[in-house]
Amino acid sequence: MIRVRVPATSANMGPGFDTLGIALNLYSRLEIEETDGGLDIITVNNSGNVQNDKTNLVYRAMDRVFRETGYRPKGLRIKQDSAIPMTRGLGSSSACIIGGMLAANALSGRTISYPDILELATEMEGHPDNAAPALYGGFCVSVKSGDRVYVKSIKLKNDLKFAVMIPDFFVATKKSRGALPDKVSLKDAAFNISRASMLQAALTTGDYDLLKIGAEDRLHQPYRKSYIDGFDEIFEHTYRTGSKATYLSGSGPTIMSILTGNGAAFKKDMEAFFSENEHKWKCMLLECDNVGSVLSETRS
Amino acid sequence: MIRVRVPATSANMGPGFDTLGIALNLYSRLEIEETDGGLDIITVNNSGNVQNDKTNLVYRAMDRVFRETGYRPKGLRIKQDSAIPMTRGLGSSSACIIGGMLAANALSGRTISYPDILELATEMEGHPDNAAPALYGGFCVSVKSGDRVYVKSIKLKNDLKFAVMIPDFFVATKKSRGALPDKVSLKDAAFNISRASMLQAALTTGDYDLLKIGAEDRLHQPYRKSYIDGFDEIFEHTYRTGSKATYLSGSGPTIMSILTGNGAAFKKDMEAFFSENEHKWKCMLLECDNVGSVLSETRS
Repeated sequence: MIRVRVPATSANMGPGFDTLGIALNLYSRLEIEETDGGLDIITVNNSGNVQNDKTNLVYRAMDRVFRETGYRPKGLRIKQDSAIPMTRGLGSSSACIIGGMLAANALSGRTISYPDILELATEMEGHPDNAAPALYGGFCVSVKSGDRVYVKSIKLKNDLKFAVMIPDFFVATKKSRGALPDKVSLKDAAFNISRASMLQAALTTGDYDLLKIGAEDRLHQPYRKSYIDGFDEIFEHTYRTGSKATYLSGSGPTIMSILTGNGAAFKKDMEAFFSENEHKWKCMLLECDNVGSVLSETRS
Repeated sequence: MIRVRVPATSANMGPGFDTLGIALNLYSRLEIEETDGGLDIITVNNSGNVQNDKTNLVYRAMDRVFRETGYRPKGLRIKQDSAIPMTRGLGSSSACIIGGMLAANALSGRTISYPDILELATEMEGHPDNAAPALYGGFCVSVKSGDRVYVKSIKLKNDLKFAVMIPDFFVATKKSRGALPDKVSLKDAAFNISRASMLQAALTTGDYDLLKIGAEDRLHQPYRKSYIDGFDEIFEHTYRTGSKATYLSGSGPTIMSILTGNGAAFKKDMEAFFSENEHKWKCMLLECDNVGSVLSETRS
């Protein structure tokens, strides 16, 4: 039996378009074993519709690795218990892909290195900014250059809370990507370079008063905010309530606030604030996961 | 007598357009004293034409501070001994401005804070990426937001050499800025965000094999390289000769290579290589200055 635990991830982090991501202590857990035949997929505790055939994302990720390694399992039983909400911008797809690939690699005798796993995962996802922290944990800077992926994972101090505010609706990533312009001004590009750089500097040095300026973005949030009723008011309220930085997680619609302190008052205040929104929003307090994916194997 | 020592600086650092900068151990030294009247400007060891009247940049920077503080010196004697070559992309202007402002502030009784000095300097220069490391030293991330300037200076380990390759010609910053397009593709913007982020991660964690991918740029170097004969060949040769990262310093024409090791072989090889270039190039091996500007005052 192979067990894999993969963390949720929050990408973009405002200005760090397709580059920055962080792992969070909310997990997808897989239990995978080889059987005598057939494909048996069981999903527990999942928030969306999950395919139980060969179109299942965990299975497809495993199959991608088996094509590399040449290993051919007779049959597979895949059990997934994921606490990561689907299609909300918290890396549920990356968790499926990384988890499936690590499990398939383990079944194949671990012939593929972690950097190569990440490149296969990035090939499936298109960008590495969720897959990298899902694999390595921490705060990750990722660069995709042709087929190569370069990553630096930096462990963060555990003195921050990440308040994840998840609405009851979703925005398809495809639609959300389609909302973006092909061209931007050089000024806006420079704007985001400076903010993404400052966000990293603030997070890694602990100078958290610089997080707010570092979370500003002009390249994707302005185009995506129309999908979220009351976007500006929510952002403003988080800052009034003590947020150090607020941004759209991935392509949304989840909104993230970074907090110092335990966050309890923030959560209570935001829940009261959201009770007047036309959608239901759930607020969870998470921490950075500095560990990344964990795999264990027990032989029956 | 006020003495100020201000380091040279290298901005942009490839992808970090108007954002990243580093201080280097090459200095402009000012000796300034109040006299009974008149303006007396002496320049020593300077590579360009320096005005000796009220259009002098050190004087203008001082005057800007005096307008803030209300202090009115009867007369001034300004002596500048600068090893920083002018108009080459090594922050000679910032060194004049920061040096003049610190001296004027000292004469006025130090009424202006360092962050405010930096904002006044940025107002004169238009962007903070040279002025910030000139003032604070180290590797600096700067954000200009309206009139406000936010800076995080990060001290680097002293295990890198910065090979500064300076040609015998210059490109006016105005011309060099004018070469840039107003619009860029979102893809190129994201390209630079990822590289600038990786450059910072590589420099600050010491994972220097990631510097090369982190030094790539699509927003200004492609437009500026036509001003430099043999640009691509020079870059390629630096990498063959052991450079960890090569970029155009500021808006050029100085080219910078970051090296591990003592750099002696690199310098020798590049000097031989440049002997065949139609221009004369000088190669200096510098280190990061983690101290920033130093001011001392002796009362006569």
